[in-house]
Amino acid sequence: MPHLPIALDAMGGDHMPDAAIDGAIAAARRGIPVLLVGDEARLQAGLAERGGVPRDAAPIDVLHAADVIRMEDHAGDVRRRREASIRVAADAVKDGAASALVSMGHSGATMATALLVFGRISGVERPAIVATIPAKNGPVTLLDVGANADCKPGMLQQFAVMGSVYARLAHDRDDPTIGLLSIGEEPGKGNELVRETHPLLARTPGIRFHGNVEGRDLLAGTTDVVVTDGFTGNVALKLAEGEARVLFGWIRDALRSGMRSKLGGLLAKPALKAVANRLDPSTYGAQPLLGVNHPTFIGHGSADARAVDNALAFARDAVDGGLVERLAREVATSITDQASGDAND
Amino acid sequence: MPHLPIALDAMGGDHMPDAAIDGAIAAARRGIPVLLVGDEARLQAGLAERGGVPRDAAPIDVLHAADVIRMEDHAGDVRRRREASIRVAADAVKDGAASALVSMGHSGATMATALLVFGRISGVERPAIVATIPAKNGPVTLLDVGANADCKPGMLQQFAVMGSVYARLAHDRDDPTIGLLSIGEEPGKGNELVRETHPLLARTPGIRFHGNVEGRDLLAGTTDVVVTDGFTGNVALKLAEGEARVLFGWIRDALRSGMRSKLGGLLAKPALKAVANRLDPSTYGAQPLLGVNHPTFIGHGSADARAVDNALAFARDAVDGGLVERLAREVATSITDQASGDAND
Repeated sequence: MPHLPIALDAMGGDHMPDAAIDGAIAAARRGIPVLLVGDEARLQAGLAERGGVPRDAAPIDVLHAADVIRMEDHAGDVRRRREASIRVAADAVKDGAASALVSMGHSGATMATALLVFGRISGVERPAIVATIPAKNGPVTLLDVGANADCKPGMLQQFAVMGSVYARLAHDRDDPTIGLLSIGEEPGKGNELVRETHPLLARTPGIRFHGNVEGRDLLAGTTDVVVTDGFTGNVALKLAEGEARVLFGWIRDALRSGMRSKLGGLLAKPALKAVANRLDPSTYGAQPLLGVNHPTFIGHGSADARAVDNALAFARDAVDGGLVERLAREVATSITDQASGDAND
Repeated sequence: MPHLPIALDAMGGDHMPDAAIDGAIAAARRGIPVLLVGDEARLQAGLAERGGVPRDAAPIDVLHAADVIRMEDHAGDVRRRREASIRVAADAVKDGAASALVSMGHSGATMATALLVFGRISGVERPAIVATIPAKNGPVTLLDVGANADCKPGMLQQFAVMGSVYARLAHDRDDPTIGLLSIGEEPGKGNELVRETHPLLARTPGIRFHGNVEGRDLLAGTTDVVVTDGFTGNVALKLAEGEARVLFGWIRDALRSGMRSKLGGLLAKPALKAVANRLDPSTYGAQPLLGVNHPTFIGHGSADARAVDNALAFARDAVDGGLVERLAREVATSITDQASGDAND
């Protein structure tokens, strides 16, 4: 049976539709079928300009959408703007014409659409956006990085369960350790949310709770998963990305001043480049929104063709790995176990 | 008139009293008189072992304290443990025998002591710990980085006023811009605390409010001051420090593999070292606690002699610059202005 295509919102984002078309062609070349959703005339013209879909590649289809949600629009607009590319793309997934949704457009609108069209996995109060941090000993799963600015302890508990499943599936961690992001390692340390969440995680079945971790543990890779509210997680993620950029900028500048440094820089360039690539946020292309009923991926508005290509490959892996089905199963078990556990308290 | 000494808790911290004695000698050599507070016999013996106070240096005095608050103790213990080194040191400042308090011990205990013994500047609800981030275009003032895990909008407003004064005094910024750390630049973006604080900062007199900033803006140096709650600020600070450490570790490793990289690394070493030094958190040695009635500095528990020396110099600069007096004046003005402004609403 041929694979279903990944539905790509080809209009939302700074470099669309060009980045979508180029990214889709690159993905199709590695065997990933794509459904481009947006202004049909522009998308077909764009494909034609590039000589059409390569002969040996997977198919690229175009689905027309007359409208597009722009960065300055409200996320809630997706309710009434049914012709918007993000909604038409989500409808295609819901109707079985595509297997996953990828968008580089308005993050809030993509989340709102996924909630509206796909609905939440049973037992999940709020979906969470997951980021992969390239830590010292391998990838660290950080969530939530922006879907929920204000959280309750029960939400963080569900993030822990979803993060645990995700680390096993996406990063091959057998029995991933879960850290709760805080300011001090002792159980009593942290803000009110963390102090209330700590005992809850300690008695959640099916996860391996390590305890509190601090900001420094994120890149040190102290735990496989780090759970936090979407405000702190988003600040942390953008800080981590921004710091890497500033730091490599300084190194570049330092290696341009003086003959000795220049020569050293030239010789060390491939090694330094490899370190910089390790921190490149476009490696994954997009971040999964966990907790909705179909695979959903949210990318940077500034995504280029490479990020689109990576996001499509990432989405395809999630579909093949049965991410949503496994999440649904684990969340159901964990919540049932906990309910019976609580009854025995 | 000779300068008053800086009171140093010589017992609290991982490497005490050795780091305190060595740091005090280094500071005394550059003309900073120090009052070492702790176990008199050990401190005098330590000084004697090092050949006593150098002849051409500023004086180092010893004040006995029979007790010490350890990392595992409760911050609140300072109330009844009046013989603890941190309390004896604070009492010396309060009694006019020293001009500022420096501690590398239990941060919570240092804060509690400063609040108890010094009291808050009139109009300041809660003191804040300030960190200096080595950003792209110079130092960025970040507060609060850990004194208050849960904040209210009025507290963030006071942090903004104190941060503005601090950036002018410590970093020579004429009319510093203030950013509110959030997840999205638009005024409506962020968690509940940020959404309520934004309009408050916009109408606070005496500060130049830029609006929301994101995690990436911290090292990019988008604003001179970044205001946030102590939970987010502490996570951000420790992440920034930890990331720099991990990144330079990777670079070191990369420059050890292969002849070409090794040679390049050798040549580029001084340039790379200069970049690493730019990010060294021990440059300042300690972080000021703003909002209490005497200059108070809190350092890392892991502080070495260099950090102690830097902290003492930093404290001396704050005393000379009249940090506490200026803060008190500005907070009073800002709050009076705002009260009359509100009355006119």
